[in-house]
Amino acid sequence: MNTVYVTRRSTFSASHRLYNPALSDAENNELFDKCANPHGHGHNYVLEVTVAGKPGKKSGYVIDLKKLKRIIQEEVLSKMDHKHLNLDVESFKGVIPTAENIAVVIWNLLAPRITEGKLFSIRLHETENNVVEYRGE
Amino acid sequence: MNTVYVTRRSTFSASHRLYNPALSDAENNELFDKCANPHGHGHNYVLEVTVAGKPGKKSGYVIDLKKLKRIIQEEVLSKMDHKHLNLDVESFKGVIPTAENIAVVIWNLLAPRITEGKLFSIRLHETENNVVEYRGE
Amino acid sequence: MNTVYVTRRSTFSASHRLYNPALSDAENNELFDKCANPHGHGHNYVLEVTVAGKPGKKSGYVIDLKKLKRIIQEEVLSKMDHKHLNLDVESFKGVIPTAENIAVVIWNLLAPRITEGKLFSIRLHETENNVVEYRGE
Amino acid sequence: MNTVYVTRRSTFSASHRLYNPALSDAENNELFDKCANPHGHGHNYVLEVTVAGKPGKKSGYVIDLKKLKRIIQEEVLSKMDHKHLNLDVESFKGVIPTAENIAVVIWNLLAPRITEGKLFSIRLHETENNVVEYRGE
Amino acid sequence: MNTVYVTRRSTFSASHRLYNPALSDAENNELFDKCANPHGHGHNYVLEVTVAGKPGKKSGYVIDLKKLKRIIQEEVLSKMDHKHLNLDVESFKGVIPTAENIAVVIWNLLAPRITEGKLFSIRLHETENNVVEYRGE
Amino acid sequence: MNTVYVTRRSTFSASHRLYNPALSDAENNELFDKCANPHGHGHNYVLEVTVAGKPGKKSGYVIDLKKLKRIIQEEVLSKMDHKHLNLDVESFKGVIPTAENIAVVIWNLLAPRITEGKLFSIRLHETENNVVEYRGE
Repeated sequence: MNTVYVTRRSTFSASHRLYNPALSDAENNELFDKCANPHGHGHNYVLEVTVAGKPGKKSGYVIDLKKLKRIIQEEVLSKMDHKHLNLDVESFKGVIPTAENIAVVIWNLLAPRITEGKLFSIRLHETENNVVEYRGE
Repeated sequence: MNTVYVTRRSTFSASHRLYNPALSDAENNELFDKCANPHGHGHNYVLEVTVAGKPGKKSGYVIDLKKLKRIIQEEVLSKMDHKHLNLDVESFKGVIPTAENIAVVIWNLLAPRITEGKLFSIRLHETENNVVEYRGE
Repeated sequence: MNTVYVTRRSTFSASHRLYNPALSDAENNELFDKCANPHGHGHNYVLEVTVAGKPGKKSGYVIDLKKLKRIIQEEVLSKMDHKHLNLDVESFKGVIPTAENIAVVIWNLLAPRITEGKLFSIRLHETENNVVEYRGE
Repeated sequence: MNTVYVTRRSTFSASHRLYNPALSDAENNELFDKCANPHGHGHNYVLEVTVAGKPGKKSGYVIDLKKLKRIIQEEVLSKMDHKHLNLDVESFKGVIPTAENIAVVIWNLLAPRITEGKLFSIRLHETENNVVEYRGE
Repeated sequence: MNTVYVTRRSTFSASHRLYNPALSDAENNELFDKCANPHGHGHNYVLEVTVAGKPGKKSGYVIDLKKLKRIIQEEVLSKMDHKHLNLDVESFKGVIPTAENIAVVIWNLLAPRITEGKLFSIRLHETENNVVEYRGE
Repeated sequence: MNTVYVTRRSTFSASHRLYNPALSDAENNELFDKCANPHGHGHNYVLEVTVAGKPGKKSGYVIDLKKLKRIIQEEVLSKMDHKHLNLDVESFKGVIPTAENIAVVIWNLLAPRITEGKLFSIRLHETENNVVEYRGE
């Protein structure tokens, strides 16, 4: 009867550029300031994936974190770590890789893979001062 | 249709004294212990301001964090950083500056200024072990 | 009318072993991998206890954190710090000490002791990458 | 023959004011800017005390950290925690409590008390961005 | 007579690519692995600049940290923050921007600008697990 | 001509017991207090391994951190992670596993394996407040 929220933290290093091709360069600079730098810039993203569920009788686990770690590796880290998000990652075709949009993209990659418990939250730290969270709502 | 929670973290250094003028000195010492020290003491407060909303189509932002940073600077940091909260800050006239009350004061200063998305939470770390959160409920 | 969430963070160092006596050794190794090591292993657990309530008129506190600290000391740290959870702690008789189960055990120890405000959440960091939260739901 | 450096970290919360009474108010404001605010401001200081020595044969310790903790409590925390450094602490009579000077003052308080191993370094974090270290040189 | 080491911490977000044009692509991939990704990747670099000197009689400062902050802003952050180090930053023409080389470049930019005290160390965190330090030796 | 200090941080979770078999139980309790608990207790150890050397012309590296990571995995983590140091780890036969002694043991395991640059320091965090460093002196 007990719902426990289990969080796995991981990190990846990527570069990105904030640029909306529907706008002029001047509008992009106005909107995104130094984040619009043509050659991009980068971050050490910290990703916290939270799964909610009831601990199993046999294991005492909501989800085996070794399994969750593997899913995050396959769906997120192998695609985004040491990449340029705009240029190297399929999921950002046509999507501006703001932290908000990265969190939603990661949710969509992970949600169908979580079958023990339910994906509850994607929390993404872009810098130590800027953090976003998406809960699939 | 996606609600994302965006958090901006900032810090300020202030001093305060916990003292209720309606009580005797003995009662204040009993209630607030070393926090009632007449000359005050201080903290590096860590402030996390969370705004909830849908990322804009044009920007991919819930709120431009440069703008949120400016609002926090104007409404909170310029008034509280390097100040004595009891003696220098208008908002604490008649209010004991416990972490709880500081969080509520900051909510009231910021809520009317947030017009993209909605202010969702004020989280304030007084020390690494003591944290409060207020959600306007 | 204001609900504030107050969190006290503390730490304790303990060892544990993940092992289900209803299963064979091979099944335990399969399920718990290196966490099933017979002599156990250990962690610096970081515990965050959150109490929700309205700040008192007289004190500006939801709960006096000195009092909350004392309750956590009596109910959790004195029993679990520098102990082997499986072998030294009464509450884990018949309970596999996964992070999930430790959080539920701590909730059950603390909830009856919190009489100012209400216990809202137990958050337990087992490592810097693995965290669980239980809210009594 | 092995020298090991042992560090004990502790924290204290204090307020201070940077003000040189030999200078005019205008000169103090010029020199110390917002740190010269008359009512002071405060910090959560993080103190790292490092002792160098050879681990004892009997204990495997350079110095028993329980003993070092007690010495730091007696000589530093009991005098500075929850105090106004300028107004409440004897050691800052005639000394501007910059982080640099606080580190030197703490060295002078602790050095004569360390009799197992030798005091090697005082490291003091005033904020997460400003740190000083003094090695008695 | 007292030497104090004063450290200012700051952060910048940049992208880079590890690639030696004197080597073949296969050799670069062998040497730099995923760091050789053609479009680059990025980090939140944490920079700690340490200056050694004696606190001034008048100020109690080794160096005014507001001044050190300004120098770091002018010489490092304005050139490297939100940039692609290989493509946007003059100092990395002909230099592979490994963390080691970035630290040496930053030393060379800052050393001539530090005239109160002496530059003692450049410490650069590339990720939470990888750190380099250069002391001008 | 430039010496750079490169640090790789890693973590492992282990349990240990501080107990000197040459002493009585009463003497052990007196000396080691709760660390002498018969069933042991545990920590998340944070290990920082620092290698000093000159960055290579070809790579810009002092040592390839992927290689250093592999050496630490082979010599330290594979032997100590998720183990009871006293009971499971050969190197602690006859050695009390205080943080000081663990650091010296790790130095002795790693020093012969570091052939690019030279091992400079082993820094070991036992808790967030207790840290030791050994430099082979």
